[in-house]
Parts: sequence; C-alpha cells; structure tokens
Amino acid sequence: MKIAVLGTGGVGRTIADKLLSAGHDVRMGSRTASSEKASGWAASAGPHGSHGTFADAAAFGQVIFNCTAGTGSLPALEMAGRENLAGKILIDLSNPLDFSRGMPPTLTVSNDDSLGERIQRAFPEARVVKTLNTVTARVMVEPSLVPGDHVLFLSGNEPEAKAQVAEWLTSWFGWTRKNLIDLGDITSARGVEMYLPLWIRMMLARGHPFFNIAVASGGPPGAK
Amino acid sequence: MKIAVLGTGGVGRTIADKLLSAGHDVRMGSRTASSEKASGWAASAGPHGSHGTFADAAAFGQVIFNCTAGTGSLPALEMAGRENLAGKILIDLSNPLDFSRGMPPTLTVSNDDSLGERIQRAFPEARVVKTLNTVTARVMVEPSLVPGDHVLFLSGNEPEAKAQVAEWLTSWFGWTRKNLIDLGDITSARGVEMYLPLWIRMMLARGHPFFNIAVASGGPPGAK
Repeated sequence: MKIAVLGTGGVGRTIADKLLSAGHDVRMGSRTASSEKASGWAASAGPHGSHGTFADAAAFGQVIFNCTAGTGSLPALEMAGRENLAGKILIDLSNPLDFSRGMPPTLTVSNDDSLGERIQRAFPEARVVKTLNTVTARVMVEPSLVPGDHVLFLSGNEPEAKAQVAEWLTSWFGWTRKNLIDLGDITSARGVEMYLPLWIRMMLARGHPFFNIAVASGGPPGAK
Repeated sequence: MKIAVLGTGGVGRTIADKLLSAGHDVRMGSRTASSEKASGWAASAGPHGSHGTFADAAAFGQVIFNCTAGTGSLPALEMAGRENLAGKILIDLSNPLDFSRGMPPTLTVSNDDSLGERIQRAFPEARVVKTLNTVTARVMVEPSLVPGDHVLFLSGNEPEAKAQVAEWLTSWFGWTRKNLIDLGDITSARGVEMYLPLWIRMMLARGHPFFNIAVASGGPPGAK
C-alpha cells in the first residue's frame, strides 16, 4: 500500500520504518523537499522509501499518518493540501504539547476542544482517526515491548474508518484486537490528549517511557 | 481516630460508612448544621457517627476528607475554617467537573493549574494529598471490586503526608502498597484531574464505572 508519513521526528521515522518492514511503499513528508532528515531517512530506506514535501507525501499516500508535532500539525496539514487529504483516512498521532515553559508541558488545546477535533473541523473531507498518541513511539509499533493486555484508544466520527484502522493496528503493528478501545466520536480525542499530563508524570516517576495502561474491569457489585 | 468527611453526596457517604466500619469516629460536615442528608446519615450511623457544619466537622477531625463536589470545594473549605485545617492532612478526592453543559463535563480548572493546587495555595498550612479521585466511590473503599493490580495515584508536597495516606489507604480501604503510585508534588494533581475526561469516556463506552487502570511496564529495549 502507498502510505504517507507526515513528520520527520522520532515518531515519524519509527512509524515509517515499521511500515517499510511490513512491505509498504512509504513517502515521508516534510516542510521542504530538501529536508535533511527526510532525505537521510529515504536514502537508507531502500527502493520502497521516498520523501518530499507534505503535499508530495499526501498526494502519494492512500492513507496518511500525521506524525508532526502537535503545535505544527494544522499548518503541516494545510501545506499537505486539502485535496490530497479528501476521502482518505488520516491517522492522527499528534499531541498538542507546549514545551515552551519547560517540563512538564502544558497543552495548547484542551478541555472543551482537542487537536483531533480541530483537524477534523479544518479538513472535513478527511476521515480522521485519533490513535497511538498515548504510548511512546517504539511501543506504537512493537506493543510486545510492554507485557500484558495494555490498551490503545480510537476516536473518530466514522465507524468504518475506525474499524479499518483497528485492522491495520493489528496486522501492521501487532496490537491485539481486544486491547483496542473505541472511545467514540472525534470529541473523545479530548480524553486521550488530556491523558498526556498523567502519562508524562508517570514517565517521570518511572524513569522511562516503556509502559502503558491496561484496563481492569469488574462489574456492578452483585451483577456477576 | 476522629475523622472529618466534608460532603454529603455519594462519595462522602461511601467514605464515611467505610471509616465507621473500620472503627473510627466520623463526623460528616455540610453547609448547614441541619442538612437532611447529613443528619439522615448520622441517624443511621450509630454512636460513632455525627454531623455538623463544615467547621464543626473540620474542628472534630484529626484528618479531613474533602468529598465535596469540585465546584464547591474551595467555598466549603473556607467555611471549614483555615484554623481547623492547619497542620492536618487534608485528603482531596474532588474533581473540578462542570456538568452545566451536560455530558461529558468539562473541567473548571486544568492544564496549567488544578483544584488540588488551588486548595493547597488557599490553605498553605493544610497538608494536602490528592488521591482516590480516579475511581468510582465504591472502588475507592473496596478495590477488590475490580480484579488485578489496578492503581491509585498520590500527589502532594509532603512525602511524610503521602506516606501516611498510603498507609491509611492500605489499612482502612484495602489497597495494596505496590499499586499506589507517588506521582510527585501537588502540581501532579493536574495529571489525575485531567485524566477524568478519559475515565468518563471509558465509563460511557463500558456502560459502568467499576473499572480502573493498571500500569503495564516493560523496560528500555535491550535493558532487561
């Protein structure tokens, strides 16, 4: 499959490498066609990896991963071009983290809105599915780095798009179906984005990012 | 031990009942001395339960549980009286949820501040420990309702106060020590309060509140 990965940071490279190893054709998109990070990645990627502008990548991809930093996601997607996003599944991994005041970061949008919603509103013809933003990059593509039945969430307005992304998360990245939680429409992106401050505190307390949450569930007392 | 429970809602009554059954003397505090909810609770509580104003309860308690609704917590604690809080451990269970626009609620404070911090700033002589706010009331006092090693967080500026609260959580409520996560100083209350929107979405998706998160942890790849 032809896949666009927008963003050249650690998340973008990790996702792009995994997609290549799963046999896909991957184009990494960046702000300029001459990005050193993107061209460096493409040079080592072999015949199935290429790079270009956000628009080059988005035009190429049948599906698009938004791996840009949250503060730059909307401008990056504008550069990608709405005609290149229309009708396609846009997997949004971004977190609206603002590190300008140091650690821990704050969120640039939260509470009664979310970056996932802003992206869906700005590009109503894209089929936005928010997922993967609640774990570190290596765990996104290798969930077995963390033991047990830890979970991922999916938020999006289209059940079909979420079902398709769930299928890809299992077949491409190794997630188990029962550990994928459909959280609701794109407004539920507020939940997974506002979880980041807790994730960061847990990461600081633990000293590394190779963890994730599992959901332990009982039932109403007496209902078993 | 003499314990104050501020708040007459489901959380307050659940906490108060559990403390009574653990052998403590519990005074429930409310806005007025003639609160029907508080007097009704006290009437059925037996000789070790009593009720009064927020100030009556706070003066009585050697430790204070803030079980008021988040939107009313600061006014309630003002009524409790700073002299009645000074030097005491104040266990803050509140969540700053605003339901005025329906479900799901928003938070009245978040991102670069939290209700836990506001309470600590308003009452600098109280020893505020934020905990228990991430699970439903029944699970707070009966963690075995949910199977497995699910977790609670503690946030507060004083390690000694957090250690004391951790001891009470295990001996009074049945939590296991290894499942209590010290998240850091009171600013980490942002993390556990901002988790609520995700908790609420999970509760809606699941159809009941009898769940909690566990933390699955690996290690840096290659570091095992």
